[in-house]
Amino acid sequence: MRFAIYVRQHDNGEVEFLSREPNVMYVGRKPPMDYVLGILTGFSGSNAKEVTLKARGQSITTAVDAVEITRHRFMKDLRISKIAIGTEEMPPREGESRPRNVSTIEITLTKETKPNEEAKAMQEAQATKEKAASSQM
Amino acid sequence: MRFAIYVRQHDNGEVEFLSREPNVMYVGRKPPMDYVLGILTGFSGSNAKEVTLKARGQSITTAVDAVEITRHRFMKDLRISKIAIGTEEMPPREGESRPRNVSTIEITLTKETKPNEEAKAMQEAQATKEKAASSQM
Repeated sequence: MRFAIYVRQHDNGEVEFLSREPNVMYVGRKPPMDYVLGILTGFSGSNAKEVTLKARGQSITTAVDAVEITRHRFMKDLRISKIAIGTEEMPPREGESRPRNVSTIEITLTKETKPNEEAKAMQEAQATKEKAASSQM
Repeated sequence: MRFAIYVRQHDNGEVEFLSREPNVMYVGRKPPMDYVLGILTGFSGSNAKEVTLKARGQSITTAVDAVEITRHRFMKDLRISKIAIGTEEMPPREGESRPRNVSTIEITLTKETKPNEEAKAMQEAQATKEKAASSQM
């Protein structure tokens, strides 16, 4: 998970750190529960009111899964404030000459929960993940 | 491709056929270009101003691909008016007892093009699809 910090420079040269620093999480090939924990962790910071998930190609489905699991099982008051889709140009695969176009999704989540509730939800999510891992063995 | 007709019944018993009948297209496991053609066909009807794509599970990526290909290559003035995600309960797989939760996406597209331009775009899309099919042989 990476975090983005937003800075704005005014005409008089003064630099302002914007108070709302959106957490950005890149969704890849891990199981959805990993990103569920990522979302809950993102919201557990004292100032975090927003988490953005970004995914490409087949991981788009994983991103949607993670959001749906989080809001149905762990954070009932999670709001989806924005969904945007787009296209990104990727370098050609081995043996190919043309760049590939890959679809992307960006899902922004906002919360209205109190910090205590996230801590509880995170414990539950961790237990679910461990249970799932042990049942696969 | 299926079409949905929207009907509203008033308190006095009168039934009103809503003039804006959104075309609904279900995205499955075919290649994205099939759904690109579906979108263009949906818009080529004289009254169609809106096409909605619905997809589940791994087909979510295909739906996003189809929208992105359509608006970058065939209908530059296509607008994404709504994206919604959700969860659907599906019957258990063979050998399993519990129902599965599957993520869904719904993407609504609106256009501002004239009918003639769709006919041209459809010809182009058909040619692209045939070219892709012949290069795979």
